[in-house]
Amino acid sequence: MHREIAIEPRQEILRAAARLFQQQGYDATSMNDVAAALKLSKGVLYHHFQSKDEILYHIMSHAMDITEERVINVVRRVEVAEERLRRLIRLHIEVVLSEEDREITVMLHENHPLPIGLRRKINARKKDYLHFVENLIADVQRQRGSPATVTPRAAAFALVGMINWIYQWYKPAGMLTGDAIVRQYTEIFFRGAFV
Amino acid sequence: MHREIAIEPRQEILRAAARLFQQQGYDATSMNDVAAALKLSKGVLYHHFQSKDEILYHIMSHAMDITEERVINVVRRVEVAEERLRRLIRLHIEVVLSEEDREITVMLHENHPLPIGLRRKINARKKDYLHFVENLIADVQRQRGSPATVTPRAAAFALVGMINWIYQWYKPAGMLTGDAIVRQYTEIFFRGAFV
Repeated sequence: MHREIAIEPRQEILRAAARLFQQQGYDATSMNDVAAALKLSKGVLYHHFQSKDEILYHIMSHAMDITEERVINVVRRVEVAEERLRRLIRLHIEVVLSEEDREITVMLHENHPLPIGLRRKINARKKDYLHFVENLIADVQRQRGSPATVTPRAAAFALVGMINWIYQWYKPAGMLTGDAIVRQYTEIFFRGAFV
Repeated sequence: MHREIAIEPRQEILRAAARLFQQQGYDATSMNDVAAALKLSKGVLYHHFQSKDEILYHIMSHAMDITEERVINVVRRVEVAEERLRRLIRLHIEVVLSEEDREITVMLHENHPLPIGLRRKINARKKDYLHFVENLIADVQRQRGSPATVTPRAAAFALVGMINWIYQWYKPAGMLTGDAIVRQYTEIFFRGAFV
Protein backbone atom coordinates (compact mmCIF):
# COMPACT_ATOMS: atom_id res chain seq x y z
CA MET A 1 0.00 0.00 0.00
CA HIS A 2 2.75 2.36 1.00
CA ARG A 3 4.90 3.93 -1.67
CA GLU A 4 8.52 4.96 -1.45
CA ILE A 5 9.37 8.47 -2.52
CA ALA A 6 12.61 8.49 -4.36
CA ILE A 7 13.47 11.99 -5.50
CA GLU A 8 14.25 14.41 -2.70
CA PRO A 9 12.00 12.69 -0.18
CA ARG A 10 12.84 15.21 2.55
CA GLN A 11 11.75 18.12 0.37
CA GLU A 12 8.54 16.38 -0.51
CA ILE A 13 7.81 15.69 3.15
CA LEU A 14 8.51 19.31 4.13
CA ARG A 15 6.26 20.62 1.40
CA ALA A 16 3.35 18.30 2.25
CA ALA A 17 3.72 19.05 5.95
CA ALA A 18 3.79 22.81 5.34
CA ARG A 19 0.60 22.51 3.33
CA LEU A 20 -1.14 20.57 6.13
CA PHE A 21 0.08 23.00 8.80
CA GLN A 22 -1.53 25.85 6.91
CA GLN A 23 -4.72 24.04 6.07
CA GLN A 24 -5.53 22.56 9.44
CA GLY A 25 -3.14 24.26 11.86
CA TYR A 26 0.22 23.15 13.17
CA ASP A 27 -0.97 21.64 16.44
CA ALA A 28 -3.92 19.87 14.84
CA THR A 29 -1.61 18.09 12.38
CA SER A 30 -0.04 14.83 13.54
CA MET A 31 2.92 12.89 12.18
CA ASN A 32 0.28 10.35 11.10
CA ASP A 33 -1.45 13.01 9.00
CA VAL A 34 1.84 13.87 7.29
CA ALA A 35 2.56 10.21 6.56
CA ALA A 36 -1.00 9.66 5.28
CA ALA A 37 -0.90 12.71 2.99
CA LEU A 38 2.20 11.29 1.31
CA LYS A 39 1.02 7.69 1.46
CA LEU A 40 4.17 6.92 3.42
CA SER A 41 4.59 4.42 6.22
CA LYS A 42 5.32 6.00 9.57
CA GLY A 43 8.63 4.16 9.54
CA VAL A 44 9.77 5.94 6.40
CA LEU A 45 8.59 9.30 7.74
CA TYR A 46 10.42 8.82 11.04
CA HIS A 47 13.51 7.74 9.14
CA HIS A 48 13.66 11.30 7.76
CA PHE A 49 12.30 13.34 10.67
CA GLN A 50 12.08 12.38 14.34
CA SER A 51 9.29 14.78 15.27
CA LYS A 52 6.93 17.51 14.13
CA ASP A 53 9.21 20.12 15.72
CA GLU A 54 12.02 18.84 13.54
CA ILE A 55 9.83 19.12 10.45
CA LEU A 56 8.79 22.68 11.35
CA TYR A 57 12.41 23.64 11.96
CA HIS A 58 13.46 22.23 8.58
CA ILE A 59 10.61 24.02 6.81
CA MET A 60 11.78 27.31 8.28
CA SER A 61 15.38 26.45 7.56
CA HIS A 62 14.48 25.61 3.97
CA ALA A 63 12.71 28.97 3.66
CA MET A 64 15.96 30.65 4.70
CA ASP A 65 17.89 28.49 2.19
CA ILE A 66 15.55 29.70 -0.54
CA THR A 67 16.11 33.33 0.45
CA GLU A 68 19.87 32.91 0.59
CA GLU A 69 20.08 31.10 -2.72
CA ARG A 70 17.68 33.25 -4.70
CA VAL A 71 18.40 36.63 -3.15
CA ILE A 72 21.72 36.89 -1.32
CA ASN A 73 23.81 34.65 -3.58
CA VAL A 74 22.54 36.43 -6.69
CA VAL A 75 22.96 40.00 -5.50
CA ARG A 76 26.45 39.34 -4.14
CA ARG A 77 27.56 39.15 -7.76
CA VAL A 78 26.23 42.64 -8.57
CA GLU A 79 29.03 45.16 -8.27
CA VAL A 80 27.39 48.56 -7.83
CA ALA A 81 25.75 48.92 -4.40
CA GLU A 82 22.68 50.76 -5.64
CA GLU A 83 22.05 48.17 -8.34
CA ARG A 84 22.61 45.42 -5.75
CA LEU A 85 19.89 46.86 -3.53
CA ARG A 86 17.44 47.29 -6.41
CA ARG A 87 18.03 43.67 -7.37
CA LEU A 88 17.57 42.54 -3.77
CA ILE A 89 14.18 44.27 -3.57
CA ARG A 90 13.05 42.59 -6.80
CA LEU A 91 14.32 39.13 -5.88
CA HIS A 92 12.98 39.21 -2.33
CA ILE A 93 9.55 40.22 -3.63
CA GLU A 94 9.74 37.39 -6.17
CA VAL A 95 10.43 34.88 -3.40
CA VAL A 96 7.40 36.14 -1.44
CA LEU A 97 5.19 35.99 -4.55
CA SER A 98 6.42 32.59 -5.75
CA GLU A 99 3.43 30.30 -5.66
CA GLU A 100 5.65 27.25 -5.65
CA ASP A 101 7.49 28.28 -2.48
CA ARG A 102 4.71 30.10 -0.72
CA GLU A 103 3.71 27.21 1.54
CA ILE A 104 7.32 26.97 2.71
CA THR A 105 8.15 30.67 3.05
CA VAL A 106 4.91 31.62 4.82
CA MET A 107 5.85 29.35 7.73
CA LEU A 108 8.84 31.56 8.49
CA HIS A 109 6.65 34.26 9.92
CA GLU A 110 4.08 32.26 11.81
CA ASN A 111 4.50 32.24 15.53
CA HIS A 112 4.59 28.49 16.16
CA PRO A 113 6.10 27.19 19.35
CA LEU A 114 9.53 25.81 18.41
CA PRO A 115 11.97 24.45 21.03
CA ILE A 116 14.20 27.31 22.13
CA GLY A 117 17.42 25.92 20.62
CA LEU A 118 15.88 25.53 17.16
CA ARG A 119 14.08 28.88 17.47
CA ARG A 120 17.45 30.58 18.14
CA LYS A 121 19.00 29.04 15.04
CA ILE A 122 16.22 30.37 12.81
CA ASN A 123 16.30 33.78 14.47
CA ALA A 124 20.05 33.97 13.93
CA ARG A 125 19.58 33.38 10.21
CA LYS A 126 16.82 35.99 10.03
CA LYS A 127 19.20 38.42 11.76
CA ASP A 128 21.96 37.65 9.26
CA TYR A 129 19.61 38.54 6.44
CA LEU A 130 18.57 41.76 8.15
CA HIS A 131 22.22 42.72 8.63
CA PHE A 132 22.98 42.03 5.00
CA VAL A 133 20.19 44.41 3.97
CA GLU A 134 21.28 46.95 6.58
CA ASN A 135 24.88 46.98 5.32
CA LEU A 136 23.74 47.32 1.76
CA ILE A 137 21.56 50.30 2.68
CA ALA A 138 24.51 51.86 4.55
CA ASP A 139 26.68 51.46 1.42
CA VAL A 140 24.11 53.20 -0.76
CA GLN A 141 23.62 55.98 1.79
CA ARG A 142 27.39 56.58 1.91
CA GLN A 143 27.68 56.73 -1.85
CA ARG A 144 24.74 59.09 -2.13
CA GLY A 145 25.77 61.24 0.82
CA SER A 146 22.32 60.75 2.37
CA PRO A 147 21.62 62.55 5.66
CA ALA A 148 21.85 60.46 8.84
CA THR A 149 18.24 61.06 9.90
CA VAL A 150 17.21 57.65 8.56
CA THR A 151 19.46 54.92 10.00
CA PRO A 152 20.28 51.83 7.93
CA ARG A 153 18.82 49.68 10.71
CA ALA A 154 15.39 51.32 10.74
CA ALA A 155 15.36 51.48 6.94
CA ALA A 156 16.19 47.75 6.73
CA PHE A 157 13.33 46.87 9.10
CA ALA A 158 10.96 49.05 7.09
CA LEU A 159 12.01 47.49 3.78
CA VAL A 160 11.93 43.88 4.96
CA GLY A 161 8.59 44.59 6.67
CA MET A 162 6.86 46.03 3.66
CA ILE A 163 8.09 43.16 1.50
CA ASN A 164 7.35 40.31 3.90
CA TRP A 165 3.91 41.74 4.60
CA ILE A 166 2.93 41.21 0.96
CA TYR A 167 1.94 37.62 1.67
CA GLN A 168 -0.82 38.96 3.93
CA TRP A 169 -2.68 40.69 1.11
CA TYR A 170 -1.37 39.64 -2.31
CA LYS A 171 -3.76 37.92 -4.69
CA PRO A 172 -2.43 36.69 -8.05
CA ALA A 173 -5.63 37.89 -9.76
CA GLY A 174 -5.61 41.26 -7.96
CA MET A 175 -5.03 44.73 -9.37
CA LEU A 176 -1.42 44.99 -8.24
CA THR A 177 0.82 42.77 -10.35
CA GLY A 178 4.19 41.57 -9.14
CA ASP A 179 5.96 43.99 -11.48
CA ALA A 180 3.87 46.92 -10.25
CA ILE A 181 4.71 46.05 -6.65
CA VAL A 182 8.44 45.81 -7.43
CA ARG A 183 8.44 49.15 -9.26
CA GLN A 184 6.44 51.06 -6.67
CA TYR A 185 8.08 49.56 -3.58
CA THR A 186 11.50 50.31 -5.08
CA GLU A 187 10.47 53.89 -5.76
CA ILE A 188 8.99 54.40 -2.28
CA PHE A 189 12.02 52.92 -0.60
CA PHE A 190 14.69 54.63 -2.66
CA ARG A 191 13.12 58.04 -2.33
CA GLY A 192 12.36 57.40 1.32
CA ALA A 193 15.73 56.14 2.51
CA PHE A 194 18.14 58.06 0.29
CA VAL A 195 18.55 61.59 -0.94
CA MET B 1 -12.99 26.93 44.39
CA HIS B 2 -14.11 28.82 41.34
CA ARG B 3 -14.17 32.58 41.37
CA GLU B 4 -16.51 34.87 39.52
CA ILE B 5 -14.94 37.67 37.50
CA ALA B 6 -16.99 40.78 37.80
CA ILE B 7 -15.41 43.60 35.84
CA GLU B 8 -15.44 43.10 32.08
CA PRO B 9 -15.33 39.31 32.27
CA ARG B 10 -15.34 38.95 28.49
CA GLN B 11 -12.27 41.16 28.13
CA GLU B 12 -10.47 39.23 30.82
CA ILE B 13 -11.28 35.93 29.11
CA LEU B 14 -10.09 37.18 25.73
CA ARG B 15 -6.84 38.45 27.19
CA ALA B 16 -6.10 35.21 29.07
CA ALA B 17 -6.98 33.12 26.02
CA ALA B 18 -4.79 35.23 23.74
CA ARG B 19 -1.88 34.74 26.13
CA LEU B 20 -2.39 30.95 26.16
CA PHE B 21 -2.73 30.79 22.35
CA GLN B 22 0.64 32.49 22.01
CA GLN B 23 2.39 30.51 24.71
CA GLN B 24 1.26 27.02 23.79
CA GLY B 25 -0.35 27.38 20.36
CA TYR B 26 -3.98 27.84 19.38
CA ASP B 27 -4.78 24.21 18.68
CA ALA B 28 -3.01 22.93 21.76
CA THR B 29 -5.13 25.19 23.98
CA SER B 30 -8.49 23.83 25.12
CA MET B 31 -11.51 25.60 26.56
CA ASN B 32 -10.55 23.79 29.79
CA ASP B 33 -7.14 25.46 29.74
CA VAL B 34 -8.75 28.87 29.35
CA ALA B 35 -11.16 28.21 32.23
CA ALA B 36 -8.32 26.90 34.42
CA ALA B 37 -6.06 29.88 33.70
CA LEU B 38 -8.80 32.19 34.98
CA LYS B 39 -9.93 29.86 37.78
CA LEU B 40 -13.37 29.90 36.17
CA SER B 41 -15.85 27.07 36.02
CA LYS B 42 -16.50 25.79 32.51
CA GLY B 43 -20.11 26.86 32.93
CA VAL B 44 -19.13 30.49 33.39
CA LEU B 45 -16.72 30.35 30.47
CA TYR B 46 -19.32 28.81 28.15
CA HIS B 47 -21.82 31.41 29.31
CA HIS B 48 -19.59 34.03 27.65
CA PHE B 49 -18.20 32.09 24.68
CA GLN B 50 -19.57 28.97 23.05
CA SER B 51 -16.32 27.78 21.49
CA LYS B 52 -12.65 28.46 20.95
CA ASP B 53 -13.43 29.73 17.44
CA GLU B 54 -15.73 32.29 18.99
CA ILE B 55 -13.00 33.38 21.40
CA LEU B 56 -10.47 33.71 18.57
CA TYR B 57 -12.93 35.72 16.52
CA HIS B 58 -13.61 38.08 19.42
CA ILE B 59 -9.88 38.52 20.07
CA MET B 60 -9.39 39.56 16.46
CA SER B 61 -12.48 41.70 16.54
CA HIS B 62 -11.26 43.38 19.73
CA ALA B 63 -7.91 44.08 18.04
CA MET B 64 -9.80 45.87 15.27
CA ASP B 65 -11.82 47.80 17.90
CA ILE B 66 -8.55 48.95 19.47
CA THR B 67 -7.24 50.13 16.09
CA GLU B 68 -10.47 51.94 15.27
CA GLU B 69 -10.72 53.64 18.65
CA ARG B 70 -7.11 54.64 19.05
CA VAL B 71 -6.20 55.40 15.46
CA ILE B 72 -9.18 56.07 13.17
CA ASN B 73 -11.43 57.86 15.68
CA VAL B 74 -8.59 60.12 16.77
CA VAL B 75 -7.25 61.07 13.35
CA ARG B 76 -10.73 61.76 11.99
CA ARG B 77 -10.70 64.87 14.17
CA VAL B 78 -7.50 66.19 12.57
CA GLU B 79 -8.36 68.63 9.84
CA VAL B 80 -5.31 68.88 7.58
CA ALA B 81 -4.77 65.69 5.56
CA GLU B 82 -0.98 65.66 5.91
CA GLU B 83 -1.19 66.10 9.66
CA ARG B 84 -3.88 63.40 9.76
CA LEU B 85 -1.55 60.93 8.05
CA ARG B 86 1.39 61.79 10.31
CA ARG B 87 -0.82 61.25 13.31
CA LEU B 88 -2.09 57.93 11.89
CA ILE B 89 1.47 56.65 11.49
CA ARG B 90 2.33 57.59 15.09
CA LEU B 91 -0.87 56.14 16.58
CA HIS B 92 -0.76 52.91 14.58
CA ILE B 93 2.85 52.35 15.66
CA GLU B 94 1.84 53.03 19.26
CA VAL B 95 -0.87 50.37 19.04
CA VAL B 96 1.67 47.85 17.71
CA LEU B 97 4.16 48.73 20.46
CA SER B 98 1.63 48.80 23.30
CA GLU B 99 2.68 46.07 25.72
CA GLU B 100 -0.78 45.98 27.24
CA ASP B 101 -2.52 45.21 23.95
CA ARG B 102 0.18 43.20 22.28
CA GLU B 103 -1.25 39.79 23.13
CA ILE B 104 -4.52 40.86 21.53
CA THR B 105 -3.22 42.69 18.46
CA VAL B 106 -0.63 40.04 17.54
CA MET B 107 -3.43 37.53 16.99
CA LEU B 108 -4.76 39.60 14.11
CA HIS B 109 -1.92 38.56 11.87
CA GLU B 110 -1.56 34.91 12.76
CA ASN B 111 -2.91 32.50 10.24
CA HIS B 112 -5.27 30.50 12.46
CA PRO B 113 -8.06 28.51 10.89
CA LEU B 114 -11.24 30.49 11.54
CA PRO B 115 -14.62 29.40 10.13
CA ILE B 116 -15.09 31.10 6.79
CA GLY B 117 -17.97 33.36 7.88
CA LEU B 118 -16.04 34.79 10.82
CA ARG B 119 -12.84 35.05 8.76
CA ARG B 120 -14.71 37.15 6.19
CA LYS B 121 -15.94 39.56 8.86
CA ILE B 122 -12.40 40.15 10.12
CA ASN B 123 -11.01 40.50 6.61
CA ALA B 124 -13.72 43.07 5.79
CA ARG B 125 -12.65 45.18 8.77
CA LYS B 126 -8.99 44.90 7.78
CA LYS B 127 -9.94 46.06 4.29
CA ASP B 128 -11.85 49.04 5.70
CA TYR B 129 -8.73 50.10 7.55
CA LEU B 130 -6.62 49.72 4.45
CA HIS B 131 -9.05 51.83 2.44
CA PHE B 132 -9.04 54.52 5.09
CA VAL B 133 -5.24 54.71 4.83
CA GLU B 134 -5.39 54.58 1.04
CA ASN B 135 -7.86 57.50 0.84
CA LEU B 136 -5.78 59.53 3.24
CA ILE B 137 -2.67 58.96 1.11
CA ALA B 138 -4.63 59.94 -2.01
CA ASP B 139 -5.68 63.21 -0.30
CA VAL B 140 -2.11 64.08 0.59
CA GLN B 141 -0.87 63.19 -2.90
CA ARG B 142 -3.51 65.46 -4.44
CA GLN B 143 -2.62 68.36 -2.18
CA ARG B 144 1.07 67.95 -2.85
CA GLY B 145 0.64 67.35 -6.56
CA SER B 146 2.64 64.11 -6.28
CA PRO B 147 3.30 62.17 -9.49
CA ALA B 148 1.08 59.16 -10.14
CA THR B 149 3.96 56.65 -10.29
CA VAL B 150 3.22 55.54 -6.73
CA THR B 151 -0.46 54.60 -6.34
CA PRO B 152 -2.26 55.19 -3.02
CA ARG B 153 -3.08 51.47 -2.91
CA ALA B 154 0.51 50.25 -3.15
CA ALA B 155 1.67 52.99 -0.78
CA ALA B 156 -1.00 51.99 1.76
CA PHE B 157 0.09 48.33 1.64
CA ALA B 158 3.73 49.38 2.04
CA LEU B 159 2.94 51.63 5.02
CA VAL B 160 0.66 49.19 6.83
CA GLY B 161 3.19 46.43 6.13
CA MET B 162 6.20 48.22 7.54
CA ILE B 163 4.22 49.19 10.65
CA ASN B 164 2.55 45.84 11.31
CA TRP B 165 5.85 44.05 10.79
CA ILE B 166 7.32 45.86 13.81
CA TYR B 167 5.89 43.25 16.15
CA GLN B 168 8.17 40.68 14.51
CA TRP B 169 11.38 42.39 15.62
CA TYR B 170 10.70 45.09 18.22
CA LYS B 171 12.29 44.69 21.66
CA PRO B 172 11.47 47.27 24.34
CA ALA B 173 15.12 47.23 25.49
CA GLY B 174 16.49 47.41 21.93
CA MET B 175 18.37 50.23 20.22
CA LEU B 176 15.37 51.56 18.30
CA THR B 177 12.96 53.36 20.63
CA GLY B 178 9.31 53.86 19.76
CA ASP B 179 9.91 57.55 19.08
CA ALA B 180 12.85 56.79 16.79
CA ILE B 181 10.72 54.32 14.84
CA VAL B 182 7.89 56.85 14.47
CA ARG B 183 10.23 59.59 13.32
CA GLN B 184 12.16 57.47 10.82
CA TYR B 185 9.18 55.55 9.42
CA THR B 186 7.34 58.84 8.93
CA GLU B 187 10.34 60.29 7.13
CA ILE B 188 10.82 57.23 4.92
CA PHE B 189 7.17 57.09 4.02
CA PHE B 190 6.58 60.78 3.42
CA ARG B 191 9.63 61.15 1.24
CA GLY B 192 8.86 57.86 -0.48
CA ALA B 193 5.19 58.35 -1.31
CA PHE B 194 4.98 62.10 -1.90
CA VAL B 195 6.98 64.73 -3.69
